[in-house]
Amino acid sequence: MDNVVMLTRIRLARNLKKYPFPCRLNLAGKNQVAKDVVDAIQKSNSAIADKFDVYEINKLTEPQRISLVESHLASPEFISDANGRVILISKDKTMSIMVNEEDHIRLQIIKKGYDLDKAYDLADKLDTLLDEQLDFAFDDKLGFLTQCPTNLGTGMRASVMLHLPALQRSRALSRISGNLQKLGLTMRGTYGEGSNPKGAMYQLSNQVTLGISEKSAIENLKNITNQLVSQELQAQQRMVKNIEIQDEISRSLGILKSAKLISCEEAIKLLSNVRFGIESGVIDNLKIDTIDELITDIQPATIMVNKNEKIAPRDRDIIRAGIIRERLS
Amino acid sequence: MDNVVMLTRIRLARNLKKYPFPCRLNLAGKNQVAKDVVDAIQKSNSAIADKFDVYEINKLTEPQRISLVESHLASPEFISDANGRVILISKDKTMSIMVNEEDHIRLQIIKKGYDLDKAYDLADKLDTLLDEQLDFAFDDKLGFLTQCPTNLGTGMRASVMLHLPALQRSRALSRISGNLQKLGLTMRGTYGEGSNPKGAMYQLSNQVTLGISEKSAIENLKNITNQLVSQELQAQQRMVKNIEIQDEISRSLGILKSAKLISCEEAIKLLSNVRFGIESGVIDNLKIDTIDELITDIQPATIMVNKNEKIAPRDRDIIRAGIIRERLS
Repeated sequence: MDNVVMLTRIRLARNLKKYPFPCRLNLAGKNQVAKDVVDAIQKSNSAIADKFDVYEINKLTEPQRISLVESHLASPEFISDANGRVILISKDKTMSIMVNEEDHIRLQIIKKGYDLDKAYDLADKLDTLLDEQLDFAFDDKLGFLTQCPTNLGTGMRASVMLHLPALQRSRALSRISGNLQKLGLTMRGTYGEGSNPKGAMYQLSNQVTLGISEKSAIENLKNITNQLVSQELQAQQRMVKNIEIQDEISRSLGILKSAKLISCEEAIKLLSNVRFGIESGVIDNLKIDTIDELITDIQPATIMVNKNEKIAPRDRDIIRAGIIRERLS
Repeated sequence: MDNVVMLTRIRLARNLKKYPFPCRLNLAGKNQVAKDVVDAIQKSNSAIADKFDVYEINKLTEPQRISLVESHLASPEFISDANGRVILISKDKTMSIMVNEEDHIRLQIIKKGYDLDKAYDLADKLDTLLDEQLDFAFDDKLGFLTQCPTNLGTGMRASVMLHLPALQRSRALSRISGNLQKLGLTMRGTYGEGSNPKGAMYQLSNQVTLGISEKSAIENLKNITNQLVSQELQAQQRMVKNIEIQDEISRSLGILKSAKLISCEEAIKLLSNVRFGIESGVIDNLKIDTIDELITDIQPATIMVNKNEKIAPRDRDIIRAGIIRERLS
């Protein structure tokens, strides 16, 4: 299970009662919200609160901002406008709080593998900690008030990132996606939309937040995740009997270990094939974690942040190939 | 030099005075010619003669016949009609004698690397040995008489098989080929005709046999070979500074070491890239001989002959990939 589910995420949308939504705030107002949230964390007595670093988005370089998105810590919308926006990130990067995105607060828990219960527990703790010091906008009928009505109620988006190489190849996914909406869920590609997202990585998340408890939304997501994972694993076992698939997996690893320059897109595709090999037992001398760390670390902006300099695309392709060769050797 | 020149060959066309050319002989006549040639070898006192095995083509299986062509021991024309045709092959496969191809005798010396003088010496010895026992058709004006007028005179075709990956990539070869004819030489692809033969392997050979001595034909071929090799090596050194070329070479080796099935065509292309890497010093832990042996051993019919069974194309692709992985590991 853990292998097919790459990441688990819980995101809660919250707003402060005493301020209008961010879109109705000027810069001074946004700064005040940010100050309130940072204070709430820093003045709390909780052990959780110690662990956060605070970043003002307009003080970050362009690669630093994009790298936040590549690491799944911030949304693309969040970094598209830096004004008055602040992000708090825990040292271990499990927790992050975007301030002044669409809502005042978007708190997120992100955990490797499949761990919805623990992720929700942690989100609940962080939520409680903030709620003790900040007065959240809440309505007895509508639940937590959010700028967009689709988040009203729990304000919670629970999601899992799934690696589904066998289901993608078998073309079963389009049929499955079609049925998800009826179940209150939605699925989209992590890298690229459409029916064949790069690397066969998909986000499955709850769609409904109103008239349903957090627990039952999570249970619902778990049920469907379990079914999808089980279908994926069955399809994998059928598929890897096929020598053409074994060939594709083995060549992908061979190319990654030998390339002297490689684009991000090609690398994601090949790493996904190698991950498929590990999940299905065709490759047994590599760790899933090595692959997953590479998938983040070879992203364009993350390469520049880690090297601490601006790097042209072709040079990134050379550096990327070097990072991959080193980690896989 | 030795690296760029893969093979050196000398072929002599000879006919026996007392028989019409093979195309005018019936089966009994051809059998008589074959008997005379085999007797000449077997009854000779020369040390050379001990070493030959004799094969009647119509007693060989289809893969055995094709494998002779894949190993450059016989011509495609020779095996296209088995009737009355015999081939004598020395144990070390350096010497072969096709009987009743276009001419009664086509004797060939084939040596690894670049060794025209030694190859010619050996051809001359074998020719002398045969001439002592068989009366060759010879005319004082026309030299050795051959069925096709283009072989009249010396009856000699001297050739080198060149690996020219850098000149092929630089597209300089079409200009060079155009000039060769004026110099009495001809160049064609070893695997596939046209401007981009597979694996960048080319046969360069003398075209003129009449009015020129063997020695001067060989000197002429040597001069042009030396020039081509020197141009190739210069182009290689320029080209391998290019990271894209390094990438192509390195990936080719990565794929060959990891593929679980591979076509002959793809394998030749990738082996040629790896050979380019060895020639230019980009790859330093592999021997040229390993690559050259693979280029022969992965040919379809040779695979079947070595495994001693008929094998379907897809299964050959699996076996081929296995042979390559084993030899390169």
